[in-house]
Amino acid sequence: MAAVSRHVEPVATMSLQLEKPMLKFYFHPSPNPAKVALLLEELGAEYEVVPVDTRKGEQFSPAFLAINPNAKTPALTDGDATLFDSTAILLYLTQKHDRFLPPATPKVQAQFLSWMMFVASGIGPYSGQAVHFKHFAPEPKEYAVNRYDYEAERHWGLIDKRLSEGQYMMGDTYTVLDMAVWGWARAVPFIFGADAWTSLPNVKRLLDEINARPAAQAAEALASRHTFKKDMDDEARAAMFPQNKRLTQA
Amino acid sequence: MAAVSRHVEPVATMSLQLEKPMLKFYFHPSPNPAKVALLLEELGAEYEVVPVDTRKGEQFSPAFLAINPNAKTPALTDGDATLFDSTAILLYLTQKHDRFLPPATPKVQAQFLSWMMFVASGIGPYSGQAVHFKHFAPEPKEYAVNRYDYEAERHWGLIDKRLSEGQYMMGDTYTVLDMAVWGWARAVPFIFGADAWTSLPNVKRLLDEINARPAAQAAEALASRHTFKKDMDDEARAAMFPQNKRLTQA
Repeated sequence: MAAVSRHVEPVATMSLQLEKPMLKFYFHPSPNPAKVALLLEELGAEYEVVPVDTRKGEQFSPAFLAINPNAKTPALTDGDATLFDSTAILLYLTQKHDRFLPPATPKVQAQFLSWMMFVASGIGPYSGQAVHFKHFAPEPKEYAVNRYDYEAERHWGLIDKRLSEGQYMMGDTYTVLDMAVWGWARAVPFIFGADAWTSLPNVKRLLDEINARPAAQAAEALASRHTFKKDMDDEARAAMFPQNKRLTQA
Repeated sequence: MAAVSRHVEPVATMSLQLEKPMLKFYFHPSPNPAKVALLLEELGAEYEVVPVDTRKGEQFSPAFLAINPNAKTPALTDGDATLFDSTAILLYLTQKHDRFLPPATPKVQAQFLSWMMFVASGIGPYSGQAVHFKHFAPEPKEYAVNRYDYEAERHWGLIDKRLSEGQYMMGDTYTVLDMAVWGWARAVPFIFGADAWTSLPNVKRLLDEINARPAAQAAEALASRHTFKKDMDDEARAAMFPQNKRLTQA
């Protein structure tokens, strides 16, 4: 069974303080933190969850900016090591534990890094922009909606094709790359609509398989153990889309 | 002096074939391939340049798609290892050569990975979207121009602040992270206009310092050794912005 994360400060005795988890995980229930939650659970790591309610603007607190100047979740501290960006955290933790990595041969490592970066610099940014324009941006937006819908579809199509060639992104072995894909795969119906899985059957197969793992269920349960703001009201829009304050028309 | 890349096939004798460079670098004179060109020159690596003229659509040839299904430059082959995405290539080559990396302590590695991924998933995508909307997208585009201009400015501001705290992104040591920043730093005036350096003096300082290195000059010279299409005409737009064929109005 996956390790249960600690959400309660231990009684302040010396022995318990020494056992306090070294990992602090700055979490919001959105795609990028989800990848890290899954990996932490797969590793059986002990960690403390620090909720960061981005729809309330908590990502702009000086304490959080000292950890992640980019004001986004996820972030992670491991003793005096400070990390931000989900891909950085995935690479750091898997290298530290030497787990969920493919064989370190040049040929395999080359494909692993290429696809990890395809997820980091392609799947995430284009899925995120598609969500923004399709769900949140004001009209007129036909050009941008088309641009990001097309690019997100194209990117997910390449992941689906890769997954048509093997059970996992790296073939027979479940790796952190599948966890990276899982984070945003959960959001595919939100990006493309309820029919999205018709054209992405292999992504759906991977999603279902990972969802059935105890680690994924523990990762999903993090969201329900903390209260996060759901409304996308003026406060949330100001916190999520600070660029809009510069618009002459909003 | 930086190694000179080979552009001419060696005479086909057995001994020369054995010395043929193992690295094939799929290149176009744009920000992401530039990072890789700089690193290859800094490493003194021997490599063969394969020009991919993306304004002519050469990135969609079956031969290139077999190397990079994402149809973008840069890509690299190292014997039977195949890589795409500039950040993947930077990580692979520096790990292979164990050069231009910061000390492998957890604290330093955590910051190195975080900022590498900030460049990969933030600086690149947001700079790229800002360029697209400011220079190439049709009206109406006020909302998207503002969004990406703001986000690109914010991202570059964080790089500038980091560089105000030390000579390089990782302090006293010139690493591959500075090369990753350099790739897009060269394009800052194109993104923000001629006055951009006023608010990014530390980025300008790093850019000038790297530009003075022989490796950077050799990397820049690659563009002039090959002929690439410059015009952004209908053929170039179709190749660069394939999503626009889906628009009802163009």
